[in-house]
Amino acid sequence: MTEFELIERFFKRRSRTAVLGNGDDCALVAPAPGNVFAITTDTLVAGRHFLPSITPGRLGRRAVHVNLSDLAAMGAAPRYALLSLTLPEIDESWVAAFAAGLWAALDEFEVELVGGNTTRGPMAIALTALGDVPPGQVLTRTGACPGDELWVSGPVGDAGWALTALLQDGDGAGELVITASPAQIDKYECPTARVALGLALRGVASSCIDISDGLLSEAQHLASASGVDIDIDIVAIPTGITDVDRSDVGQAAPVVNTVATGNERNRILRARLAQHCLLATGDTYELLFTAPSSRHDDVVRLLAAQDLAGACIGRVTTSANRPAVRVLDAQSRLMNIESKGWDHFA
Amino acid sequence: MTEFELIERFFKRRSRTAVLGNGDDCALVAPAPGNVFAITTDTLVAGRHFLPSITPGRLGRRAVHVNLSDLAAMGAAPRYALLSLTLPEIDESWVAAFAAGLWAALDEFEVELVGGNTTRGPMAIALTALGDVPPGQVLTRTGACPGDELWVSGPVGDAGWALTALLQDGDGAGELVITASPAQIDKYECPTARVALGLALRGVASSCIDISDGLLSEAQHLASASGVDIDIDIVAIPTGITDVDRSDVGQAAPVVNTVATGNERNRILRARLAQHCLLATGDTYELLFTAPSSRHDDVVRLLAAQDLAGACIGRVTTSANRPAVRVLDAQSRLMNIESKGWDHFA
Repeated sequence: MTEFELIERFFKRRSRTAVLGNGDDCALVAPAPGNVFAITTDTLVAGRHFLPSITPGRLGRRAVHVNLSDLAAMGAAPRYALLSLTLPEIDESWVAAFAAGLWAALDEFEVELVGGNTTRGPMAIALTALGDVPPGQVLTRTGACPGDELWVSGPVGDAGWALTALLQDGDGAGELVITASPAQIDKYECPTARVALGLALRGVASSCIDISDGLLSEAQHLASASGVDIDIDIVAIPTGITDVDRSDVGQAAPVVNTVATGNERNRILRARLAQHCLLATGDTYELLFTAPSSRHDDVVRLLAAQDLAGACIGRVTTSANRPAVRVLDAQSRLMNIESKGWDHFA
Repeated sequence: MTEFELIERFFKRRSRTAVLGNGDDCALVAPAPGNVFAITTDTLVAGRHFLPSITPGRLGRRAVHVNLSDLAAMGAAPRYALLSLTLPEIDESWVAAFAAGLWAALDEFEVELVGGNTTRGPMAIALTALGDVPPGQVLTRTGACPGDELWVSGPVGDAGWALTALLQDGDGAGELVITASPAQIDKYECPTARVALGLALRGVASSCIDISDGLLSEAQHLASASGVDIDIDIVAIPTGITDVDRSDVGQAAPVVNTVATGNERNRILRARLAQHCLLATGDTYELLFTAPSSRHDDVVRLLAAQDLAGACIGRVTTSANRPAVRVLDAQSRLMNIESKGWDHFA
């Protein structure tokens, strides 16, 4: 099967709305009247953005949602996608399953695949996505104001918890052993782009970003772009991580006592891991956004209307010397969190 | 150096014309009034689309031109690009040189880099490019009509000849040894997107494609999309391959005589290789287009005005049973060319 046959068989459908769909050197597309295009591109590399254990159908779905999550964060309505698929070999049943997952996700949002290419090489999936947004209603990172509340659209940390569990070597002698629920593995492998919420937040949110890298670093992006400080209440962060005592998570920097008993030591290690997952692991793809406190009830209604377990997790304050994100414990005391340490959690 | 620092240092510049450039979840872009966007994406994989010997600066240039060539083939004016860069490690001097080559090429066409990402993994460069084109003036693959002439915008085969030479293992005992000129290696490593020609061909060309894969297969795309036959005169194809007797190239299927002397055998092998390079090797990135014969002089003037060594190399005929491309020898006899054989030239 050649590249052309592969594209023809699995990735080509007539476009309904493009001026010219795939099948020429370029596709021809235009935003709807009064809109501009929000455009984003992301590459998923094997072993880096997904584990070999993921099924091809889930991988196809993931590639779509990861990209559409960026559109959602701008308040854009997804329209078109282009796919660059690099495969070490053409395994027809693999490609068929991948394409099925991809198309199901595209169809869910009525996104048309209008171009792309396939090539041979180490597996990588690069998707470019375009969406419509009226330029006056776009959600950016720059509008957070002191007094605004900070919101997250759903549970945080489960994907990181699942990835940690999946990466354990199974030996575990003397080490902390954690397990991930099927729901947590779903959250890691099959994130859901919050497209409808992004659209609903037009005119409500003052700034918005999606959590692809980690809550703290995304909050830092909002703070830097907006020139504000942000305070996060760690106990307010919603999460599906249940096998940790939430009161432990809310404590400042629990320290592993080397003379603690095994159970006690594991309890502290779990709490530290949970803190790390909440604050620093990625793959969450929930929206992190700010809104004026006067819109608090509106946001609550929007989240409830979409059945999202989001929550208000902090607030925007006046910037001190430099835009900074602070994390507060259960007693509203500043937690001593070295972001560098969190980045290199082992 | 983190991903963010890498992007900040090498790949971020303020956009002049985008509604919102890079630095948010998406860029915001719109075609100029009266235009739509032509959009294309291409991935360059190490060892597949470039050799390890290419300098990073040339690779950056190549990534841009390969993508803009698709825009040129649609008659679109390049506007924006997004870059997905996958690198096995961050070598700052390599990235600096790559970025310099990339920016020089983008600047040449006033293209703005409005988004993208970097990630760690096997080296790959995925670029998405957008250009403006009025929908009524777009060059597609579908407009070739019987009676039209077939044109190519410049020399063909040199890139394939250079790649063949570069891939020789240097041993060569008893085998054909060829050398590539610096100009031919330039043609392979540094193709030039025929952007200005694509714009000038609006309203002149009836169909157009760029030669990325090989003259015969690109001509086949035009024939299939337009539902016509195409005849190509092999001796009319312009090429920089000089160390082959052109009269040999124009002969139908020269056969290697196993009892031929070494010199005679090499002469035939060179002619066969030259035929292969003309008809079936890629990386040319010249435009292949059709135009009514009434526009012959206009096309000659357009090519001359841009200092392009293009030529009329054939004609469009009525389709017989199936759209087909035929190659004619110096005596206008049908050459017996098995495209399957050409694809797997060894």
